[in-house]
Amino acid sequence: MSSIWGNSIKLSIFGESHSRGIGGVIDNLPPGIEIDMEEIAFELKRRQTGSSSLATARKEPDIPEILSGVVDGKTTGTPLAFVIYNSDQHSSDYDNLKVTARPSHADYTGYLRYKGFNDHRGGGHFSGRLTAPLVFAGAVAKCALRQKGIYTVSRIKSIMDIEDDAWCLDDMTPLKANELKNMIIPTVSPSAAKMMEERVLSLKSELDSAGGVIECAIMNMEKGIGNPIFDAFESRLSSLIFSVPAVKGLEFGEGFGVTKMRGSEANDTLYTDGEGIYTKTNHDGGINGGITNGMPIVFRTAIKPTASISREQDTVNFVEKTNEKLVIKGRHDACICVRAVSVIDACAALCAFDYLVEAKMF
Amino acid sequence: MSSIWGNSIKLSIFGESHSRGIGGVIDNLPPGIEIDMEEIAFELKRRQTGSSSLATARKEPDIPEILSGVVDGKTTGTPLAFVIYNSDQHSSDYDNLKVTARPSHADYTGYLRYKGFNDHRGGGHFSGRLTAPLVFAGAVAKCALRQKGIYTVSRIKSIMDIEDDAWCLDDMTPLKANELKNMIIPTVSPSAAKMMEERVLSLKSELDSAGGVIECAIMNMEKGIGNPIFDAFESRLSSLIFSVPAVKGLEFGEGFGVTKMRGSEANDTLYTDGEGIYTKTNHDGGINGGITNGMPIVFRTAIKPTASISREQDTVNFVEKTNEKLVIKGRHDACICVRAVSVIDACAALCAFDYLVEAKMF
Amino acid sequence: MSSIWGNSIKLSIFGESHSRGIGGVIDNLPPGIEIDMEEIAFELKRRQTGSSSLATARKEPDIPEILSGVVDGKTTGTPLAFVIYNSDQHSSDYDNLKVTARPSHADYTGYLRYKGFNDHRGGGHFSGRLTAPLVFAGAVAKCALRQKGIYTVSRIKSIMDIEDDAWCLDDMTPLKANELKNMIIPTVSPSAAKMMEERVLSLKSELDSAGGVIECAIMNMEKGIGNPIFDAFESRLSSLIFSVPAVKGLEFGEGFGVTKMRGSEANDTLYTDGEGIYTKTNHDGGINGGITNGMPIVFRTAIKPTASISREQDTVNFVEKTNEKLVIKGRHDACICVRAVSVIDACAALCAFDYLVEAKMF
Amino acid sequence: MSSIWGNSIKLSIFGESHSRGIGGVIDNLPPGIEIDMEEIAFELKRRQTGSSSLATARKEPDIPEILSGVVDGKTTGTPLAFVIYNSDQHSSDYDNLKVTARPSHADYTGYLRYKGFNDHRGGGHFSGRLTAPLVFAGAVAKCALRQKGIYTVSRIKSIMDIEDDAWCLDDMTPLKANELKNMIIPTVSPSAAKMMEERVLSLKSELDSAGGVIECAIMNMEKGIGNPIFDAFESRLSSLIFSVPAVKGLEFGEGFGVTKMRGSEANDTLYTDGEGIYTKTNHDGGINGGITNGMPIVFRTAIKPTASISREQDTVNFVEKTNEKLVIKGRHDACICVRAVSVIDACAALCAFDYLVEAKMF
Repeated sequence: MSSIWGNSIKLSIFGESHSRGIGGVIDNLPPGIEIDMEEIAFELKRRQTGSSSLATARKEPDIPEILSGVVDGKTTGTPLAFVIYNSDQHSSDYDNLKVTARPSHADYTGYLRYKGFNDHRGGGHFSGRLTAPLVFAGAVAKCALRQKGIYTVSRIKSIMDIEDDAWCLDDMTPLKANELKNMIIPTVSPSAAKMMEERVLSLKSELDSAGGVIECAIMNMEKGIGNPIFDAFESRLSSLIFSVPAVKGLEFGEGFGVTKMRGSEANDTLYTDGEGIYTKTNHDGGINGGITNGMPIVFRTAIKPTASISREQDTVNFVEKTNEKLVIKGRHDACICVRAVSVIDACAALCAFDYLVEAKMF
Repeated sequence: MSSIWGNSIKLSIFGESHSRGIGGVIDNLPPGIEIDMEEIAFELKRRQTGSSSLATARKEPDIPEILSGVVDGKTTGTPLAFVIYNSDQHSSDYDNLKVTARPSHADYTGYLRYKGFNDHRGGGHFSGRLTAPLVFAGAVAKCALRQKGIYTVSRIKSIMDIEDDAWCLDDMTPLKANELKNMIIPTVSPSAAKMMEERVLSLKSELDSAGGVIECAIMNMEKGIGNPIFDAFESRLSSLIFSVPAVKGLEFGEGFGVTKMRGSEANDTLYTDGEGIYTKTNHDGGINGGITNGMPIVFRTAIKPTASISREQDTVNFVEKTNEKLVIKGRHDACICVRAVSVIDACAALCAFDYLVEAKMF
Repeated sequence: MSSIWGNSIKLSIFGESHSRGIGGVIDNLPPGIEIDMEEIAFELKRRQTGSSSLATARKEPDIPEILSGVVDGKTTGTPLAFVIYNSDQHSSDYDNLKVTARPSHADYTGYLRYKGFNDHRGGGHFSGRLTAPLVFAGAVAKCALRQKGIYTVSRIKSIMDIEDDAWCLDDMTPLKANELKNMIIPTVSPSAAKMMEERVLSLKSELDSAGGVIECAIMNMEKGIGNPIFDAFESRLSSLIFSVPAVKGLEFGEGFGVTKMRGSEANDTLYTDGEGIYTKTNHDGGINGGITNGMPIVFRTAIKPTASISREQDTVNFVEKTNEKLVIKGRHDACICVRAVSVIDACAALCAFDYLVEAKMF
Repeated sequence: MSSIWGNSIKLSIFGESHSRGIGGVIDNLPPGIEIDMEEIAFELKRRQTGSSSLATARKEPDIPEILSGVVDGKTTGTPLAFVIYNSDQHSSDYDNLKVTARPSHADYTGYLRYKGFNDHRGGGHFSGRLTAPLVFAGAVAKCALRQKGIYTVSRIKSIMDIEDDAWCLDDMTPLKANELKNMIIPTVSPSAAKMMEERVLSLKSELDSAGGVIECAIMNMEKGIGNPIFDAFESRLSSLIFSVPAVKGLEFGEGFGVTKMRGSEANDTLYTDGEGIYTKTNHDGGINGGITNGMPIVFRTAIKPTASISREQDTVNFVEKTNEKLVIKGRHDACICVRAVSVIDACAALCAFDYLVEAKMF
């Protein structure tokens, strides 16, 4: 089902870019989780428009209102519903998009799927704005995960051909993770961040855009969590990650790189100190047979360059079936990847949390 | 749920490598689909052990028995159950694996997840053998898709650093797709196939293994199929692909490569001949906003080197928590990627079919 | 999952009696359905508190706000979210219920289930008020069903030992169905309604309450709709009906009465006029093998007497584990069955609609 | 989905009366449950044809074969698949039913639903024989429930107008429950059983049939189990009960009878001995707000008279649309209610088990 995700918890999301509001309902939350509204606000702000010179000019504050499911700052265990009202809408910016497809956007496919009844304004239900409910839900998950010392850490690994330095996961403490969250372009190398920012601004000035790769790790994850086959940790997480607009690829551990390695190099051999069991390398990204092995869960997500560019592009009027030229109006990030970090990070937390609720760890 | 996949159809699979049998139940198949048992047998044979010098020596014939849901060669519309009985089992090969983890296998995580009650023989439920029911279900899907002229084509794009030539999808006719299915290593370049085979045999002789990348396209797919957000075509297909053992990455269209491109290069501009609507490039792999746009759906899957190698490896006894050396006995492919082609191809067909049933195209 | 219902459409509901609001999200609505806000308001008013001397004194107007999924009065096909804000709350009426169980209410079981974190005010998530989102969703379903000439008709068949006359379904036209909707106690016999009303008022004056039986028919239902076994029409509808508070029984067609008949009496023999196929009787209530046969779908629902009565009752403090006397404060109907008619009627419409969407009749 | 039931465990069933076999797959069973094959065989025999003069003459032994998911007599935690092969088939008995509807059977609706492709032999997928997999799964559930002292007890409460005596649940010990299981007509009053048997045999001699009411209780159920609203204990159980062929009604606790009572009579007042919390009466059948309260869960199921009677009946040829006379051949029980006891009992166990797995009580 399109708008509902999760196995143990269920997140139902709704909204269009220019509807009365966007939001979600989270069912089967464990009762008694403390909801940190400041953390939620912080995460929404990271994702939000207007956070930096790299993002779009849309300025509405994403202030969520909780409609149900929380009493005295704690979850009741019954559905937590929340809404973020839409306000700063320039609907007229989108008038020409009712019949004209923005290249590499969902205007044409949305028209096909919904027989012309979908809300085209601002991308409607396909808008990147729909990731705000995901970030909200991810923040709720983080409130819970923190109780168990589990946290996520995310960074931009590359923008176009500019690569961040290798990271050492041992250094990715909760403190460091927070530090990254407060950077405009979260990288371990300050100079990489600077080069990335310059590149994005340069492309913006050329009315163009950039993509990138986001790397995320789930730290201190419980071991033995997940399922074989159709409900492998990778399967469930991937179904969430590919729900995020602009994602074109996902890899775990060594990912595509492992196809260049011999088995004897790729295998994560195990050792024990008599207490814990560990692997010497982590090419499998913390998962074997769909189940966590106690090592960090590491994955990378490919984000394509922002499809909305201000250059004139060839396209079609899909109702009249005529060839057209299009210049996209409205406000758009030159590198959506920058804001997508908070969304991917939220997905990681949400998926880990869903499995842990299933395993009755809460 | 771990053993059930699908939205409109539901595939429930079962079995362990050394149980009485493996198989599945497919629910909500449209009534009246002609089941081509020869095609099913052919696809199972492609996947099967013993198909070439590259594969393992296990020789049992994967002959499925249909238990229900088919009358006079046509689906009834009620659940189609099938079983493939296990026969050629060397359970004693696996005796030491009850407590000893094969590196990069699910022995340790399976033990954790099932509290020691899981069937360890031959990997049990985690065995690659469980992909046979997937291939069966995929073959059923292909029987249906053929009615609409929809088909899949798959090849090995690379094994380690050996790359196949670029393929031109216009040339990937049903005839060519079949030709690839009959190759031991399906590539468009015969010399690439030869080099890949030599490399695999060479690694095998070194008691080592190789991985690779599989590329697959769904041709003539209906447009307007799929859903936004959580049920994006990529989401549903990814949940299936990551169910296949040894998969470490998945990318659509240009995939990770698109992160190196500018938006103005990456965008798939549209044109029309007054009838159909097409894109000039297909960097998005035939999907926008989770919904098909009528172009071929193209994706690539990273398969890690076979984890079972015959070299001595460091590992642990996870019950006693002691460090151990392990030499894996039993029969193993030096490059599982070769046989995985049929599985990935089946996943593609199954996912396309599931969406088309949902859209009442059958 | 507790808060989500439906197979083809998915209704997710949320809220507590005294939270910021109650509401729901309906996913996978067909695009282009005209939403008649007046019909929705009318149905909500039927269910609402304060509609008559028989109902509770709570006076807040249940005015829903649509948050997404509707543009220009038509469904977009993406999730339709709506909220009904709570206003007229006397939370302090419920202070003693945090630890004291109202007999035959969910106070004690809710406490167990949610470990004390559930919202006890006004019954919280267990409140009958949560049926308002059901009525909203049912009204949306009715907007769609009307396009196909399908409608529901409901009446109170009995209150305590007072029975309405037999109804003749041939007379239950859409006009008559509307007439019933406008009655305080919808019966075919005016004198039965009068007697029922008197009985309820009399019990109310005795600080007591009454239950009753609601009968509902789905008229002009498409034939061939439903599924065998676990997704039988009765199964899916029953899962919805038993979600309504105070429901203790459900029967289809002749129901429990059929157990007194011989097979030769009970069987619905068939006949044809060469065009349609009909049954001479309708003891099966329009369903065979879980699938509709084209006859009216008829079912009856048992509603227990309102559990909240103002008499002193024996109960326990479930935290301290002490025996207590309780006098329930707050506002309560003497016969919840009267208002439940609109809820059961909504369930019927919703279930019929869900199946028709599945069968792509919309 | 039609063939899959359950929330925490998932039971997928398959088969047609005359296909190769019938069976099921149970996913997400807790690992380590001891499977008592004798108990399973006993329960299947109770349900089975040929157990008494009251049942049909079909004699095949329902011997299940376990295909996966059990090692050394214990569940592995991965899918448990089982098959019961069909053998004693008189397909030719059913030749005239391909186009002729047996009154109050699913022949016509099955034809509509599956466009003529369904297997009509012996009722195909609609056959009562499909309850054998339910009984198997219920027996597995009972193996697990026994560990916690939870058990089910079932009896025939009435056949036509012959009523069994009231039962006292305090007397319904596990021993008594087993005693009932070994009776042809399980009642607490031996004379009632005798009268029922005579009535059934008398109707059989008249080529007619009888229905009845089955009463079942789940004893020692954990309290606090279940969910509000859509996943109420009654909702989930009802979806299963109405999956059983011939069920026309279901009521919990006092059921329809409660509609005749005043609130002050109907309410289950609570008391405590300082340890446990109990209700003085059990009109609610052990459930409040969809959640168990620790009292026995009591429900009654209405089973219609066997629709297959050997008298000539009016019907139609639904392909040619002509009026016809039909005499049903084949073997049929005069009172299916007798064998349905084991099925309803299995449903109760299965539902209780599903909730307990969800609550991680296993």
